[in-house]
Amino acid sequence: MAYQEVFRVSSRGRGSQNITGEVKAVVARAAIATGLAHVFVRHTSCSLLLTENADPDVRLDLETLFARLVPDGDPIYRHDLEGQDDMAAHGRSLLAGYELTVPVGNGELLLGGWQGIFLWEHRTSSHRREIVVTVIG
Amino acid sequence: MAYQEVFRVSSRGRGSQNITGEVKAVVARAAIATGLAHVFVRHTSCSLLLTENADPDVRLDLETLFARLVPDGDPIYRHDLEGQDDMAAHGRSLLAGYELTVPVGNGELLLGGWQGIFLWEHRTSSHRREIVVTVIG
Amino acid sequence: MAYQEVFRVSSRGRGSQNITGEVKAVVARAAIATGLAHVFVRHTSCSLLLTENADPDVRLDLETLFARLVPDGDPIYRHDLEGQDDMAAHGRSLLAGYELTVPVGNGELLLGGWQGIFLWEHRTSSHRREIVVTVIG
Repeated sequence: MAYQEVFRVSSRGRGSQNITGEVKAVVARAAIATGLAHVFVRHTSCSLLLTENADPDVRLDLETLFARLVPDGDPIYRHDLEGQDDMAAHGRSLLAGYELTVPVGNGELLLGGWQGIFLWEHRTSSHRREIVVTVIG
Repeated sequence: MAYQEVFRVSSRGRGSQNITGEVKAVVARAAIATGLAHVFVRHTSCSLLLTENADPDVRLDLETLFARLVPDGDPIYRHDLEGQDDMAAHGRSLLAGYELTVPVGNGELLLGGWQGIFLWEHRTSSHRREIVVTVIG
Repeated sequence: MAYQEVFRVSSRGRGSQNITGEVKAVVARAAIATGLAHVFVRHTSCSLLLTENADPDVRLDLETLFARLVPDGDPIYRHDLEGQDDMAAHGRSLLAGYELTVPVGNGELLLGGWQGIFLWEHRTSSHRREIVVTVIG
């Protein structure tokens, strides 16, 4: 049994925003007791992030860490058609990932108490991002 | 068809331990011929690792590599509530991942001959970690 | 409902090659309207990569970026049984990942317009790589 919904989120430039509620709502409508919920962004310059939902400094620190691992405007990049953040966004997207799967039990996401799901925009300008949630059970 | 089990593993501080046998046992009990086995940690400071199961130096080298990519006690971190390894553990968790999916065929995990599944603790002290295995077919 | 196929690809040493067509063909034969397609390499020294399918410079830049993050022949490595690229290949495999899952809708992969699926060989010599595609719905 499979249930699928697509929703869109407007990012506000580089940074992460909590979409756990949106994903939980899809899982509730799926009405599947036991299975998996898969979340996917149809883009190569943003990520889905599963990390601590309590202290927002964790996500700020991940931002700083990624700025060091995959810097904007690095002279090693050839691909810069859309600016200094273009190739960095692709590199960050790869390292942080563009999809995640969370188990579903008793019809609910089996997230740990500290885990939240975030859309992580890697481009510096705002973008409309399309997210596909598929629940299988 | 979906089958799910939760089990707990006590880590012994930073380092990785083989949990392939535990995952295989759940897959055997699931009795699903063809499908997917999904493994998930309900935490944001440890990882699941799929890597070489032969030479243990591979996992020691991954540890060294991650110590360089995401150092403990880096002055760039704001989040240090639980010590020098706190934010490093979140960063490592993101880079190495907190879930993995392995195909199931003939009722068995279709791992390659050199692939093993490991719980990778990123905190320096031991923790009790909860792992959810879901088999779908 | 689950459908599974295994196929093999000969890599031509380090670099990435487009396998989107091969994966789409399996999904077409699966004849599953709504669900998930999971792609898995049975190896620990190559990756599956979901990234931009337009400008090939993106993948060249990812190669350069990974050469900096996980250098060949780094003196920190203990594991070098198969040469300078051996441990680097395991580290790259972990960072870029060895599996990916893409939603299926109307019987087709729901990739974004810019997303392609690539086999990314991390060893410097050519290898025969085994890829398992599982479609669940």
